[in-house]
Amino acid sequence: MDAAALWQRYQDWLYYHAGLGFYVDISRMRFDDAFVEGLQPKLEKAFQDMAALEGGAIANPDENRMVGHYWLRDPDLAPTPEIKQEIVESVDQIETFARKIHSGAIHPPQAPRYTDIISIGIGGSALGPEFVAEALAPDFPPLAIHFIDNTDPAGIDRVLTRVRNRLTSTLVIVISKSGGTPEPRNGTIELKAAYAGHNLDFTKHAIAITTPDSKLDRQAKSEGWLATFPMFDWVGGRTSELSAVGLLPAALQGIDIRAMLAGAKEMDVATRVADLKTNPAALLALGWYYSGNGRGEKDMVVLPYKDSLLLFSRYLQQLVMESLGKEKDLDGNIVHQGIAVYGNKGSTDQHAYVQQLREGVPNFFATFIEVLEDRSGSSPDIDPGATAGDYLSGFLQGTRQALYEKQRDSITITIPQVNPHTVGALIALYERAVGFYGSLVNINAYHQPGVEAGKKAAAVVLDLQKQVLQVLQEAKTPLSLAQIAEKAAATDQIEAIYKILRHLQANRRGVAMQGDPAQPGSLTFSLS
Amino acid sequence: MDAAALWQRYQDWLYYHAGLGFYVDISRMRFDDAFVEGLQPKLEKAFQDMAALEGGAIANPDENRMVGHYWLRDPDLAPTPEIKQEIVESVDQIETFARKIHSGAIHPPQAPRYTDIISIGIGGSALGPEFVAEALAPDFPPLAIHFIDNTDPAGIDRVLTRVRNRLTSTLVIVISKSGGTPEPRNGTIELKAAYAGHNLDFTKHAIAITTPDSKLDRQAKSEGWLATFPMFDWVGGRTSELSAVGLLPAALQGIDIRAMLAGAKEMDVATRVADLKTNPAALLALGWYYSGNGRGEKDMVVLPYKDSLLLFSRYLQQLVMESLGKEKDLDGNIVHQGIAVYGNKGSTDQHAYVQQLREGVPNFFATFIEVLEDRSGSSPDIDPGATAGDYLSGFLQGTRQALYEKQRDSITITIPQVNPHTVGALIALYERAVGFYGSLVNINAYHQPGVEAGKKAAAVVLDLQKQVLQVLQEAKTPLSLAQIAEKAAATDQIEAIYKILRHLQANRRGVAMQGDPAQPGSLTFSLS
Repeated sequence: MDAAALWQRYQDWLYYHAGLGFYVDISRMRFDDAFVEGLQPKLEKAFQDMAALEGGAIANPDENRMVGHYWLRDPDLAPTPEIKQEIVESVDQIETFARKIHSGAIHPPQAPRYTDIISIGIGGSALGPEFVAEALAPDFPPLAIHFIDNTDPAGIDRVLTRVRNRLTSTLVIVISKSGGTPEPRNGTIELKAAYAGHNLDFTKHAIAITTPDSKLDRQAKSEGWLATFPMFDWVGGRTSELSAVGLLPAALQGIDIRAMLAGAKEMDVATRVADLKTNPAALLALGWYYSGNGRGEKDMVVLPYKDSLLLFSRYLQQLVMESLGKEKDLDGNIVHQGIAVYGNKGSTDQHAYVQQLREGVPNFFATFIEVLEDRSGSSPDIDPGATAGDYLSGFLQGTRQALYEKQRDSITITIPQVNPHTVGALIALYERAVGFYGSLVNINAYHQPGVEAGKKAAAVVLDLQKQVLQVLQEAKTPLSLAQIAEKAAATDQIEAIYKILRHLQANRRGVAMQGDPAQPGSLTFSLS
Repeated sequence: MDAAALWQRYQDWLYYHAGLGFYVDISRMRFDDAFVEGLQPKLEKAFQDMAALEGGAIANPDENRMVGHYWLRDPDLAPTPEIKQEIVESVDQIETFARKIHSGAIHPPQAPRYTDIISIGIGGSALGPEFVAEALAPDFPPLAIHFIDNTDPAGIDRVLTRVRNRLTSTLVIVISKSGGTPEPRNGTIELKAAYAGHNLDFTKHAIAITTPDSKLDRQAKSEGWLATFPMFDWVGGRTSELSAVGLLPAALQGIDIRAMLAGAKEMDVATRVADLKTNPAALLALGWYYSGNGRGEKDMVVLPYKDSLLLFSRYLQQLVMESLGKEKDLDGNIVHQGIAVYGNKGSTDQHAYVQQLREGVPNFFATFIEVLEDRSGSSPDIDPGATAGDYLSGFLQGTRQALYEKQRDSITITIPQVNPHTVGALIALYERAVGFYGSLVNINAYHQPGVEAGKKAAAVVLDLQKQVLQVLQEAKTPLSLAQIAEKAAATDQIEAIYKILRHLQANRRGVAMQGDPAQPGSLTFSLS
């Protein structure tokens, strides 16, 4: 395509949202008119699905749930007055609470103000808050946030060590839909122990964000925690950033949550338009479909050229991969759908893996995210007339061009600044694009049946650990793995038993191991 | 495969390094004996290539360079006495310097000790130091490190704001092989301005790590910087973590660099063995080759189950993708090689994208990294007899099992602890595995010709910016993009000109834009 034709294509496909100053450019995805024409019936269906979902239809049939994260930004759309009221009250409650925390009206027993937050949550209860903290928190926030987003003991120790001098003035937010998810439950138990170890009353520091009447909610209420905020049944974890899950930590850090909600609402309005060229989410979904033949054949490489958007790709990994990575379509056919997502930031990544993107396996399309404003103040010149930001901008344009020359496709999103308004809009854009794409490929984008498998297998391992310890307790002499497996009636689980014992031994948990570690079959175990 | 056969396969393929307590398990890559047999000739060749490279052969033929990062850990292997001496002196110099900084023998003009480090570098000069800082730095290091690894003005501002009260006692390390790479050069210029703005003498805070007699080296010497440390021509950026690039920041943070070097050396010895089953790097390379048919058809998903190893996948992205992502093989055939790498950490990612890994597009293999020791102290019980670390271990085993049941392959690496010894070994293992795999697929794993393309294209954009500003200066009335392009003799660059002007306008750089932003063709520009 010659330069003039390409410039025309750029203009023809450029999407611009005046209110948000938000551009989407899919001109470097090399689809043709016939492709767009052919996709029209599916697009029509996707627009209908979106309208039904927003009207309160059961959009997550497997779990028999409504999908309502759009109502969070525009409660007038909620299907019942009760739901509308719950949303409105929740945001008011968050703002009021944050104000009281900031002013010291609510303060810890032994300090005039809370200074830190430890946020305990995983997956959808961590990735959004982490992304937003990195993108939007002021350099010196009213409360500094730390995340426990795993069940790694060393990770928990690190967070506790870092706040050790300020535990007295540290809030703990526990985010768990049910309260039963092991990672946040384990983190909470460890933190309760840590607070008790410092003679502090954990309940005076603890806040729960959970489903009303969940196990965690009942615990928080019966123990008299500082506050609880609701999670809604009709909001999935990966689309919960604009519910209390994301809004409470944001508000406590001094981030303007009304602006986040307003940005998302504006984007929701824009992505409700049932017309491809004027709907930025439909444009993204079309680009994704084109690139991977509607089967996820290409990875999505996300390259924001802005340090503060570093965690956007990690946030999108969950949103995109958990939503789209499905074995079956809505008709029950085996389809193995999904789109793999990865990325960090430009121009840093040009020095990491753009070598492969440009020359290696052509198994991806890129998404550039451009931020027009370089910084809030003015910039010194690096060369006469050129600033560090001009270089950043030049690298983005240059890399996009260098990829295009090698027939590597890309999408470019441009926002005026990184601020609560645009971040809310980015989140809403991708939530909708994922929903659209789910419709295009006919899958349920709102469940996650595969996540259970690893959890169940882990529960089996933990049960097996109990049995194995029982066997060793009853044993009079060291036993081989085969012997232990037989006594535990688990002869098909020898490898798992080996891993359990090796782990216990390494953690000084009373298990002694004899023999050559290079030859697991030669090992014997006993209680020490 | 039944449980007994699988357990036998596990034992048959298990690699164990007694000195390091390091396991590699490729039993869940479903290759058969015929595959291994068929790969033998290529493996033999790879062992020979390795020996030649370590002997000082030109292993990077395009750039006519030796590849010597192995000598860093065992200077006796260096091909000349001069090189050996350079290596030995460099490590001694780093240790001596770090000791003097810690003791205050070297201190800033206006403070008794340095408290912080700002490290300026990109790609290989950032990813390794960032990974090692996250993995190994003590919770309260003698100096706290901050990274400027980009040319993002807002990112630079953020770092400067965070250390603003301690700039007086902040060291600046500039890492750049030539001194000509724009990102570190721009960061240095910005920091010089910031120090000057605080009436501080930048040169009393600045350290250069660079090639002797480079532009940066000459600048540092002529301006009298605090110190300079060498980068060696025979060490590539992505394999430079165990040169001064990684060792100086590590030593300043109080990390035992001799232990890192010793761990890498032990692993180098282990991966020098010309026998598949007793060489852990050869085992990894075989697994990768099997999974992707020697053509990178599967992505490498890296899942360390340990918070402190979070950045390992980002480090590996560069090491693997920049090394293997090549258009041509050594015979000049177009091959488009590479392996895409992504990942964060378990069990966190089970709540993000394991849904897709288990059920979605089968376009990957996983690498689990298991750390046997949960934490340095003891753990409270979560359930009777089960700790948070047992859960973490159970999630790893469970997820590995759940993937295997769905015919998703995985490799598992097990280390006893995250410490300087094992991190050095991990780095060395992957460096060698990448070298082996490069031999198996017959590519130059040590150059990066594609990186230049984006840089050159960026330089073109910056030149064009000058021309465009010149045109606007000479114009008497607002000009359309087409008019500007014509006057700048760049009619095939209208889109680039538009992007340049939009960026300048957004940054209050004296460019005024009139018209409808949704219609770039309608816009006119003038100097304001």
